[in-house]
Amino acid sequence: MTDHLVGLGAVSVLAVMEQVYFSLQVVYARRKYSVTPPSTTGPPEFERLHRAQVNCTEYFPIFITLLWTSGLFFHQGVSALCGLLYLYSRYRYFNGYSQSSRQRLAPLYFGATVLWALIGFSSLGVLGSFSRLYAGVDLVDLASSC
Amino acid sequence: MTDHLVGLGAVSVLAVMEQVYFSLQVVYARRKYSVTPPSTTGPPEFERLHRAQVNCTEYFPIFITLLWTSGLFFHQGVSALCGLLYLYSRYRYFNGYSQSSRQRLAPLYFGATVLWALIGFSSLGVLGSFSRLYAGVDLVDLASSC
Amino acid sequence: MTDHLVGLGAVSVLAVMEQVYFSLQVVYARRKYSVTPPSTTGPPEFERLHRAQVNCTEYFPIFITLLWTSGLFFHQGVSALCGLLYLYSRYRYFNGYSQSSRQRLAPLYFGATVLWALIGFSSLGVLGSFSRLYAGVDLVDLASSC
Ligand SMILES: N[C@@H](CCC(=O)N[C@@H](CS)C(=O)NCC(=O)O)C(=O)O
Ligand SMILES: N[C@@H](CCC(=O)N[C@@H](CS)C(=O)NCC(=O)O)C(=O)O
Ligand SMILES: N[C@@H](CCC(=O)N[C@@H](CS)C(=O)NCC(=O)O)C(=O)O
Repeated sequence: MTDHLVGLGAVSVLAVMEQVYFSLQVVYARRKYSVTPPSTTGPPEFERLHRAQVNCTEYFPIFITLLWTSGLFFHQGVSALCGLLYLYSRYRYFNGYSQSSRQRLAPLYFGATVLWALIGFSSLGVLGSFSRLYAGVDLVDLASSC
Repeated sequence: MTDHLVGLGAVSVLAVMEQVYFSLQVVYARRKYSVTPPSTTGPPEFERLHRAQVNCTEYFPIFITLLWTSGLFFHQGVSALCGLLYLYSRYRYFNGYSQSSRQRLAPLYFGATVLWALIGFSSLGVLGSFSRLYAGVDLVDLASSC
Repeated sequence: MTDHLVGLGAVSVLAVMEQVYFSLQVVYARRKYSVTPPSTTGPPEFERLHRAQVNCTEYFPIFITLLWTSGLFFHQGVSALCGLLYLYSRYRYFNGYSQSSRQRLAPLYFGATVLWALIGFSSLGVLGSFSRLYAGVDLVDLASSC
Protein backbone atom coordinates (compact mmCIF):
# COMPACT_ATOMS: atom_id res chain seq x y z
CA MET A 1 0.00 0.00 0.00
CA THR A 2 2.89 2.32 0.69
CA ASP A 3 5.29 0.57 -1.68
CA HIS A 4 5.04 3.47 -4.10
CA LEU A 5 6.61 5.77 -1.46
CA VAL A 6 9.59 3.56 -0.80
CA GLY A 7 12.08 6.06 -2.25
CA LEU A 8 11.09 8.64 0.36
CA GLY A 9 11.07 5.98 3.07
CA ALA A 10 14.57 4.82 2.16
CA VAL A 11 16.06 8.34 2.19
CA SER A 12 14.31 9.07 5.50
CA VAL A 13 15.85 6.02 7.13
CA LEU A 14 19.28 6.94 5.76
CA ALA A 15 18.83 10.46 7.13
CA VAL A 16 18.05 9.04 10.56
CA MET A 17 21.12 6.81 10.43
CA GLU A 18 23.27 9.82 9.59
CA GLN A 19 21.89 11.75 12.57
CA VAL A 20 22.57 8.78 14.83
CA TYR A 21 26.12 8.68 13.49
CA PHE A 22 26.57 12.41 14.30
CA SER A 23 25.21 11.87 17.82
CA LEU A 24 27.58 8.98 18.44
CA GLN A 25 30.53 11.17 17.36
CA VAL A 26 29.51 13.67 20.07
CA VAL A 27 29.28 10.86 22.63
CA TYR A 28 32.83 9.71 21.73
CA ALA A 29 34.13 13.29 21.78
CA ARG A 30 32.60 13.83 25.22
CA ARG A 31 34.67 10.89 26.46
CA LYS A 32 37.84 11.88 24.60
CA TYR A 33 37.80 15.50 25.82
CA SER A 34 36.19 14.75 29.21
CA VAL A 35 33.21 17.04 28.68
CA THR A 36 30.67 15.71 31.18
CA PRO A 37 26.96 16.50 30.62
CA PRO A 38 25.21 18.85 31.14
CA SER A 39 28.22 20.93 30.00
CA THR A 40 28.51 21.68 26.28
CA THR A 41 31.68 23.74 26.47
CA GLY A 42 35.26 22.53 26.27
CA PRO A 43 38.22 22.60 23.90
CA PRO A 44 37.51 24.15 20.46
CA GLU A 45 37.69 20.70 18.84
CA PHE A 46 34.79 19.53 20.99
CA GLU A 47 32.77 22.70 20.56
CA ARG A 48 33.01 22.57 16.77
CA LEU A 49 31.99 18.92 16.66
CA HIS A 50 29.12 19.57 19.05
CA ARG A 51 27.90 22.61 17.07
CA ALA A 52 28.17 20.57 13.87
CA GLN A 53 25.78 17.99 15.36
CA VAL A 54 23.43 20.69 16.68
CA ASN A 55 23.32 22.48 13.33
CA CYS A 56 22.59 19.24 11.43
CA THR A 57 19.90 18.46 14.00
CA GLU A 58 18.28 21.87 13.51
CA TYR A 59 17.92 21.26 9.79
CA PHE A 60 16.87 17.61 10.04
CA PRO A 61 13.09 18.22 10.46
CA ILE A 62 13.20 20.94 7.79
CA PHE A 63 14.83 18.47 5.43
CA ILE A 64 12.40 15.63 6.19
CA THR A 65 9.43 17.96 5.68
CA LEU A 66 10.77 19.15 2.32
CA LEU A 67 11.69 15.62 1.21
CA TRP A 68 8.12 14.45 1.75
CA THR A 69 6.23 17.52 0.47
CA SER A 70 8.41 17.57 -2.62
CA GLY A 71 8.06 13.81 -3.03
CA LEU A 72 4.30 13.72 -2.46
CA PHE A 73 3.34 16.79 -4.48
CA PHE A 74 6.10 17.05 -7.09
CA HIS A 75 8.13 13.94 -7.94
CA GLN A 76 9.42 11.15 -5.75
CA GLY A 77 12.54 10.26 -7.74
CA VAL A 78 13.76 13.85 -8.03
CA SER A 79 13.16 14.43 -4.32
CA ALA A 80 14.91 11.25 -3.25
CA LEU A 81 17.91 12.20 -5.41
CA CYS A 82 18.05 15.69 -3.88
CA GLY A 83 17.73 13.99 -0.51
CA LEU A 84 20.82 11.86 -1.14
CA LEU A 85 22.77 14.95 -2.26
CA TYR A 86 21.70 16.77 0.89
CA LEU A 87 22.75 13.90 3.16
CA TYR A 88 26.12 13.81 1.42
CA SER A 89 26.53 17.60 1.92
CA ARG A 90 25.72 17.20 5.63
CA TYR A 91 28.29 14.44 5.98
CA ARG A 92 30.93 16.76 4.49
CA TYR A 93 29.65 19.68 6.62
CA PHE A 94 30.02 17.64 9.79
CA ASN A 95 33.54 16.44 8.98
CA GLY A 96 34.60 19.86 7.70
CA TYR A 97 33.27 21.72 10.75
CA SER A 98 34.94 19.26 13.13
CA GLN A 99 38.27 20.12 11.44
CA SER A 100 37.85 23.90 11.28
CA SER A 101 35.03 26.45 11.14
CA ARG A 102 36.14 27.47 7.65
CA GLN A 103 35.80 23.98 6.22
CA ARG A 104 32.11 23.89 7.06
CA LEU A 105 31.35 26.63 4.53
CA ALA A 106 31.65 24.91 1.14
CA PRO A 107 29.40 21.94 2.08
CA LEU A 108 27.03 24.37 3.82
CA TYR A 109 26.50 26.33 0.61
CA PHE A 110 26.05 23.15 -1.38
CA GLY A 111 23.51 21.79 1.11
CA ALA A 112 21.67 25.11 1.15
CA THR A 113 21.40 25.01 -2.66
CA VAL A 114 19.86 21.55 -2.48
CA LEU A 115 17.38 22.75 0.18
CA TRP A 116 16.40 25.69 -2.04
CA ALA A 117 15.84 23.26 -4.91
CA LEU A 118 13.57 21.16 -2.66
CA ILE A 119 11.71 24.31 -1.61
CA GLY A 120 11.22 25.16 -5.29
CA PHE A 121 10.00 21.66 -6.17
CA SER A 122 7.64 21.54 -3.18
CA SER A 123 6.18 24.93 -4.09
CA LEU A 124 5.70 23.90 -7.71
CA GLY A 125 4.05 20.67 -6.59
CA VAL A 126 1.72 22.45 -4.19
CA LEU A 127 0.80 25.07 -6.80
CA GLY A 128 0.12 22.28 -9.30
CA SER A 129 -2.21 20.52 -6.84
CA PHE A 130 -4.05 23.76 -6.08
CA SER A 131 -4.56 24.54 -9.76
CA ARG A 132 -5.86 21.03 -10.47
CA LEU A 133 -8.22 21.13 -7.50
CA TYR A 134 -9.57 24.65 -7.64
CA ALA A 135 -9.06 25.88 -11.21
CA GLY A 136 -9.48 22.53 -12.94
CA VAL A 137 -6.25 23.25 -14.82
CA ASP A 138 -3.50 20.66 -15.01
CA LEU A 139 -0.27 22.68 -15.19
CA VAL A 140 1.73 19.61 -16.23
CA ASP A 141 -0.56 18.95 -19.20
CA LEU A 142 -0.42 22.65 -20.03
CA ALA A 143 3.37 22.74 -19.96
CA SER A 144 3.77 19.64 -22.09
CA SER A 145 1.27 20.90 -24.71
CA CYS A 146 3.18 24.18 -25.22
CA MET B 1 -3.24 11.30 -5.61
CA THR B 2 -2.14 13.60 -2.82
CA ASP B 3 -4.05 16.60 -4.14
CA HIS B 4 -6.55 16.30 -1.29
CA LEU B 5 -3.74 17.01 1.21
CA VAL B 6 -2.54 20.17 -0.50
CA GLY B 7 -3.62 22.43 2.38
CA LEU B 8 -1.28 20.62 4.76
CA GLY B 9 1.46 20.58 2.12
CA ALA B 10 1.15 24.33 1.53
CA VAL B 11 1.35 25.22 5.24
CA SER B 12 4.31 22.84 5.67
CA VAL B 13 6.24 24.56 2.89
CA LEU B 14 5.43 27.98 4.36
CA ALA B 15 6.64 26.76 7.76
CA VAL B 16 9.92 25.66 6.21
CA MET B 17 10.34 29.02 4.51
CA GLU B 18 9.81 30.77 7.82
CA GLN B 19 12.48 28.62 9.49
CA VAL B 20 14.89 29.38 6.66
CA TYR B 21 14.15 33.08 7.14
CA PHE B 22 14.94 32.80 10.88
CA SER B 23 18.20 30.96 10.12
CA LEU B 24 19.27 33.64 7.64
CA GLN B 25 18.64 36.32 10.27
CA VAL B 26 21.08 34.49 12.56
CA VAL B 27 23.64 34.28 9.74
CA TYR B 28 23.37 38.07 9.18
CA ALA B 29 23.54 38.75 12.93
CA ARG B 30 26.69 36.60 13.19
CA ARG B 31 28.31 38.89 10.62
CA LYS B 32 26.98 42.12 12.12
CA TYR B 33 28.09 41.32 15.69
CA SER B 34 31.18 39.30 14.66
CA VAL B 35 30.12 36.12 16.43
CA THR B 36 32.20 33.45 14.71
CA PRO B 37 31.02 29.80 14.89
CA PRO B 38 31.20 27.63 16.93
CA SER B 39 30.53 30.41 19.46
CA THR B 40 26.90 31.20 20.27
CA THR B 41 27.57 33.93 22.82
CA GLY B 42 27.96 37.64 22.19
CA PRO B 43 26.12 40.90 22.75
CA PRO B 44 22.58 40.52 24.18
CA GLU B 45 21.09 41.53 20.81
CA PHE B 46 22.75 38.55 19.18
CA GLU B 47 21.93 36.15 21.99
CA ARG B 48 18.24 37.03 21.93
CA LEU B 49 18.03 36.64 18.17
CA HIS B 50 19.90 33.34 18.34
CA ARG B 51 17.69 32.00 21.14
CA ALA B 52 14.62 33.10 19.20
CA GLN B 53 15.73 30.96 16.27
CA VAL B 54 16.60 28.02 18.53
CA ASN B 55 13.25 28.18 20.30
CA CYS B 56 11.31 28.30 17.01
CA THR B 57 13.42 25.37 15.78
CA GLU B 58 12.60 23.34 18.90
CA TYR B 59 8.88 23.70 18.26
CA PHE B 60 9.02 23.22 14.49
CA PRO B 61 8.81 19.38 14.47
CA ILE B 62 6.13 19.49 17.19
CA PHE B 63 4.14 21.87 15.02
CA ILE B 64 4.54 19.82 11.82
CA THR B 65 3.49 16.64 13.65
CA LEU B 66 0.37 18.32 15.05
CA LEU B 67 -0.50 19.95 11.72
CA TRP B 68 -0.53 16.57 10.00
CA THR B 69 -2.16 14.47 12.73
CA SER B 70 -4.84 17.09 13.16
CA GLY B 71 -5.22 17.41 9.37
CA LEU B 72 -5.30 13.68 8.69
CA PHE B 73 -7.51 12.59 11.58
CA PHE B 74 -9.63 15.66 12.27
CA HIS B 75 -10.08 18.29 9.55
CA GLN B 76 -7.65 19.62 6.98
CA GLY B 77 -9.06 23.13 6.63
CA VAL B 78 -9.23 23.81 10.36
CA SER B 79 -5.68 22.51 10.83
CA ALA B 80 -4.27 24.54 7.97
CA LEU B 81 -5.90 27.67 9.38
CA CYS B 82 -4.46 26.98 12.85
CA GLY B 83 -1.14 26.39 11.10
CA LEU B 84 -1.22 29.84 9.51
CA LEU B 85 -2.06 31.43 12.86
CA TYR B 86 0.82 29.57 14.47
CA LEU B 87 3.29 30.68 11.79
CA TYR B 88 2.15 34.27 12.27
CA SER B 89 2.61 33.97 16.06
CA ARG B 90 6.14 32.63 15.52
CA TYR B 91 6.99 35.52 13.22
CA ARG B 92 5.92 37.95 15.93
CA TYR B 93 7.72 35.90 18.60
CA PHE B 94 10.95 36.05 16.62
CA ASN B 95 10.76 39.80 16.01
CA GLY B 96 9.61 40.51 19.56
CA TYR B 97 12.34 38.41 21.16
CA SER B 98 15.03 40.04 19.00
CA GLN B 99 13.89 43.42 20.39
CA SER B 100 13.59 42.44 24.05
CA SER B 101 12.92 39.31 26.11
CA ARG B 102 9.66 40.81 27.30
CA GLN B 103 8.27 41.28 23.82
CA ARG B 104 8.48 37.53 23.14
CA LEU B 105 5.79 36.80 25.73
CA ALA B 106 2.52 37.92 24.09
CA PRO B 107 3.14 36.05 20.80
CA LEU B 108 4.43 33.07 22.81
CA TYR B 109 1.12 32.77 24.68
CA PHE B 110 -0.85 33.18 21.47
CA GLY B 111 1.22 30.50 19.71
CA ALA B 112 0.88 28.18 22.71
CA THR B 113 -2.90 28.56 22.58
CA VAL B 114 -2.91 27.58 18.91
CA LEU B 115 -0.73 24.54 19.69
CA TRP B 116 -3.15 23.48 22.44
CA ALA B 117 -6.02 23.79 19.96
CA LEU B 118 -4.13 21.56 17.51
CA ILE B 119 -3.46 19.06 20.31
CA GLY B 120 -7.18 19.06 21.10
CA PHE B 121 -8.19 18.58 17.45
CA SER B 122 -5.62 15.80 16.94
CA SER B 123 -6.83 14.00 20.06
CA LEU B 124 -10.46 14.30 18.98
CA GLY B 125 -9.55 13.01 15.53
CA VAL B 126 -7.60 10.07 16.90
CA LEU B 127 -10.39 9.19 19.36
CA GLY B 128 -12.90 9.38 16.51
CA SER B 129 -10.83 6.97 14.40
CA PHE B 130 -10.44 4.55 17.30
CA SER B 131 -14.17 4.54 18.01
CA ARG B 132 -15.01 3.95 14.35
CA LEU B 133 -12.47 1.13 14.06
CA TYR B 134 -12.91 -0.73 17.33
CA ALA B 135 -16.37 0.17 18.63
CA GLY B 136 -18.08 0.57 15.28
CA VAL B 137 -19.40 3.90 16.49
CA ASP B 138 -19.07 7.02 14.40
CA LEU B 139 -18.77 9.87 16.90
CA VAL B 140 -19.40 12.48 14.21
CA ASP B 141 -22.69 10.84 13.21
CA LEU B 142 -23.58 10.52 16.86
CA ALA B 143 -22.86 14.17 17.57
CA SER B 144 -24.85 15.41 14.59
CA SER B 145 -27.85 13.21 15.45
CA CYS B 146 -28.11 14.62 18.96
CA MET C 1 -9.58 7.25 5.09
CA THR C 2 -6.71 7.47 7.54
CA ASP C 3 -8.40 5.35 10.20
CA HIS C 4 -6.00 2.50 9.50
CA LEU C 5 -3.08 4.71 10.63
CA VAL C 6 -4.62 5.66 13.95
CA GLY C 7 -2.02 3.76 15.98
CA LEU C 8 0.75 5.95 14.56
CA GLY C 9 -1.39 9.06 14.98
CA ALA C 10 -2.10 8.26 18.63
CA VAL C 11 1.57 7.70 19.51
CA SER C 12 2.53 10.89 17.64
CA VAL C 13 0.07 12.95 19.66
CA LEU C 14 1.32 11.37 22.90
CA ALA C 15 4.88 12.18 21.87
CA VAL C 16 3.93 15.82 21.31
CA MET C 17 2.26 15.98 24.70
CA GLU C 18 5.39 14.62 26.32
CA GLN C 19 7.53 17.29 24.63
CA VAL C 20 5.11 19.97 25.78
CA TYR C 21 5.39 18.59 29.32
CA PHE C 22 9.20 18.79 29.14
CA SER C 23 9.02 22.38 27.87
CA LEU C 24 6.71 23.39 30.68
CA GLN C 25 9.15 21.93 33.22
CA VAL C 26 11.83 24.21 31.79
CA VAL C 27 9.49 27.21 32.01
CA TYR C 28 8.80 26.44 35.70
CA ALA C 29 12.51 25.86 36.40
CA ARG C 30 13.33 29.21 34.77
CA ARG C 31 11.01 30.86 37.31
CA LYS C 32 12.21 28.79 40.27
CA TYR C 33 15.92 29.42 39.63
CA SER C 34 15.46 32.93 38.14
CA VAL C 35 17.11 32.11 34.82
CA THR C 36 15.82 34.84 32.54
CA PRO C 37 15.88 34.24 28.76
CA PRO C 38 17.97 34.41 26.63
CA SER C 39 20.30 32.90 29.27
CA THR C 40 20.47 29.11 29.44
CA THR C 41 23.04 28.90 32.21
CA GLY C 42 22.41 28.81 35.95
CA PRO C 43 22.58 26.40 38.87
CA PRO C 44 23.43 22.76 37.93
CA GLU C 45 19.83 21.71 38.70
CA PHE C 46 18.57 24.07 36.01
CA GLU C 47 21.27 23.19 33.50
CA ARG C 48 20.56 19.48 33.78
CA LEU C 49 16.82 19.96 33.38
CA HIS C 50 17.38 22.27 30.42
CA ARG C 51 19.80 19.87 28.72
CA ALA C 52 17.35 17.02 29.35
CA GLN C 53 14.70 18.96 27.42
CA VAL C 54 17.14 19.88 24.64
CA ASN C 55 18.32 16.30 24.26
CA CYS C 56 14.75 14.95 24.08
CA THR C 57 13.96 17.67 21.54
CA GLU C 58 16.94 16.68 19.38
CA TYR C 59 15.68 13.11 19.15
CA PHE C 60 12.00 13.95 18.72
CA PRO C 61 12.04 14.35 14.89
CA ILE C 62 14.26 11.28 14.56
CA PHE C 63 11.76 9.30 16.61
CA ILE C 64 8.70 10.56 14.66
CA THR C 65 10.41 9.76 11.35
CA LEU C 66 11.23 6.21 12.50
CA LEU C 67 7.77 5.66 13.99
CA TRP C 68 6.14 6.46 10.66
CA THR C 69 8.61 4.75 8.29
CA SER C 70 8.53 1.65 10.46
CA GLY C 71 4.74 1.85 10.74
CA LEU C 72 4.13 2.50 7.04
CA PHE C 73 6.64 0.03 5.59
CA PHE C 74 6.91 -2.64 8.28
CA HIS C 75 4.08 -3.04 10.81
CA GLN C 76 1.93 -0.46 12.54
CA GLY C 77 1.27 -2.33 15.78
CA VAL C 78 4.91 -3.22 16.38
CA SER C 79 5.98 0.37 15.68
CA ALA C 80 3.35 1.89 17.92
CA LEU C 81 4.41 -0.45 20.73
CA CYS C 82 8.08 0.50 20.29
CA GLY C 83 6.92 4.11 20.24
CA LEU C 84 5.25 3.75 23.63
CA LEU C 85 8.38 2.12 25.06
CA TYR C 86 10.49 4.95 23.68
CA LEU C 87 8.24 7.62 25.18
CA TYR C 88 8.44 5.86 28.52
CA SER C 89 12.25 5.75 28.30
CA ARG C 90 12.33 9.47 27.56
CA TYR C 91 10.13 10.21 30.54
CA ARG C 92 12.59 8.33 32.76
CA TYR C 93 15.55 9.98 31.01
CA PHE C 94 14.14 13.42 31.69
CA ASN C 95 13.43 12.74 35.35
CA GLY C 96 16.72 10.92 35.87
CA TYR C 97 18.80 13.65 34.21
CA SER C 98 17.07 16.36 36.25
CA GLN C 99 18.18 14.48 39.41
CA SER C 100 21.77 13.74 38.37
CA SER C 101 23.76 13.25 35.16
CA ARG C 102 24.37 9.63 36.09
CA GLN C 103 20.69 8.79 36.35
CA ARG C 104 20.12 9.69 32.72
CA LEU C 105 22.26 6.76 31.54
CA ALA C 106 20.08 3.68 32.14
CA PRO C 107 16.98 5.13 30.41
CA LEU C 108 19.23 6.52 27.67
CA TYR C 109 20.55 3.04 26.82
CA PHE C 110 17.05 1.60 26.93
CA GLY C 111 15.71 4.33 24.63
CA ALA C 112 18.65 3.88 22.26
CA THR C 113 17.90 0.15 22.04
CA VAL C 114 14.30 0.91 21.08
CA LEU C 115 15.50 3.38 18.43
CA TRP C 116 17.83 0.75 16.97
CA ALA C 117 14.91 -1.68 16.84
CA LEU C 118 12.85 0.92 14.95
CA ILE C 119 15.78 1.50 12.58
CA GLY C 120 15.94 -2.24 11.99
CA PHE C 121 12.19 -2.55 11.36
CA SER C 122 12.16 0.47 9.04
CA SER C 123 15.08 -0.92 7.04
CA LEU C 124 13.41 -4.34 6.75
CA GLY C 125 10.19 -2.67 5.66
CA VAL C 126 11.93 -0.54 3.05
CA LEU C 127 13.90 -3.51 1.72
CA GLY C 128 10.67 -5.52 1.53
CA SER C 129 8.97 -2.77 -0.49
CA PHE C 130 11.94 -2.49 -2.86
CA SER C 131 12.02 -6.23 -3.45
CA ARG C 132 8.28 -6.34 -4.14
CA LEU C 133 8.49 -3.39 -6.51
CA TYR C 134 11.67 -4.08 -8.44
CA ALA C 135 12.38 -7.79 -8.12
CA GLY C 136 8.78 -8.97 -7.97
CA VAL C 137 9.70 -10.98 -4.88
CA ASP C 138 7.62 -10.82 -1.74
CA LEU C 139 10.07 -11.39 1.10
CA VAL C 140 7.26 -11.95 3.59
CA ASP C 141 5.76 -14.75 1.46
CA LEU C 142 9.23 -16.17 0.99
CA ALA C 143 9.96 -16.18 4.71
CA SER C 144 6.66 -17.78 5.64
CA SER C 145 7.05 -20.51 2.99
CA CYS C 146 10.45 -21.59 4.33
N1 LIG D 1 23.75 16.73 21.86
C1 LIG D 1 24.05 15.48 22.53
C2 LIG D 1 24.40 14.43 21.47
C3 LIG D 1 24.80 13.05 21.94
C4 LIG D 1 23.90 12.44 23.00
O1 LIG D 1 22.70 12.22 22.77
N2 LIG D 1 24.51 12.20 24.19
C5 LIG D 1 23.83 11.56 25.30
C6 LIG D 1 24.83 10.59 25.96
S1 LIG D 1 26.37 11.39 26.44
C7 LIG D 1 23.36 12.54 26.35
O2 LIG D 1 22.62 12.14 27.24
N3 LIG D 1 23.80 13.80 26.31
C8 LIG D 1 23.52 14.77 27.33
C9 LIG D 1 23.08 16.08 26.79
O3 LIG D 1 22.71 16.18 25.59
O4 LIG D 1 23.03 17.03 27.59
C10 LIG D 1 25.18 15.78 23.52
O5 LIG D 1 25.62 16.92 23.58
O6 LIG D 1 25.57 14.88 24.26
N1 LIG E 1 21.83 28.08 14.65
C1 LIG E 1 22.58 28.48 13.46
C2 LIG E 1 21.60 29.16 12.47
C3 LIG E 1 22.18 29.70 11.20
C4 LIG E 1 23.08 28.73 10.44
O1 LIG E 1 22.67 27.63 10.02
N2 LIG E 1 24.36 29.17 10.29
C5 LIG E 1 25.35 28.45 9.53
C6 LIG E 1 26.18 29.47 8.74
S1 LIG E 1 26.90 30.75 9.77
C7 LIG E 1 26.30 27.64 10.41
O2 LIG E 1 27.07 26.83 9.89
N3 LIG E 1 26.28 27.89 11.73
C8 LIG E 1 27.23 27.29 12.62
C9 LIG E 1 26.59 26.73 13.85
O3 LIG E 1 25.36 26.55 13.89
O4 LIG E 1 27.37 26.39 14.79
C10 LIG E 1 23.73 29.37 13.92
O5 LIG E 1 23.84 29.59 15.14
O6 LIG E 1 24.56 29.78 13.09
N1 LIG F 1 14.16 25.63 25.57
C1 LIG F 1 13.11 26.47 26.08
C2 LIG F 1 11.97 25.60 26.59
C3 LIG F 1 10.78 26.26 27.22
C4 LIG F 1 10.20 27.43 26.43
O1 LIG F 1 9.77 27.28 25.27
N2 LIG F 1 10.26 28.63 27.06
C5 LIG F 1 9.69 29.85 26.51
C6 LIG F 1 9.02 30.63 27.65
S1 LIG F 1 10.11 30.95 29.03
C7 LIG F 1 10.74 30.75 25.87
O2 LIG F 1 10.39 31.71 25.21
N3 LIG F 1 12.04 30.47 26.10
C8 LIG F 1 13.10 31.33 25.65
C9 LIG F 1 14.21 30.59 24.99
O3 LIG F 1 14.06 29.42 24.63
O4 LIG F 1 15.26 31.24 24.78
C10 LIG F 1 13.73 27.39 27.13
O5 LIG F 1 14.94 27.26 27.36
O6 LIG F 1 13.03 28.26 27.66
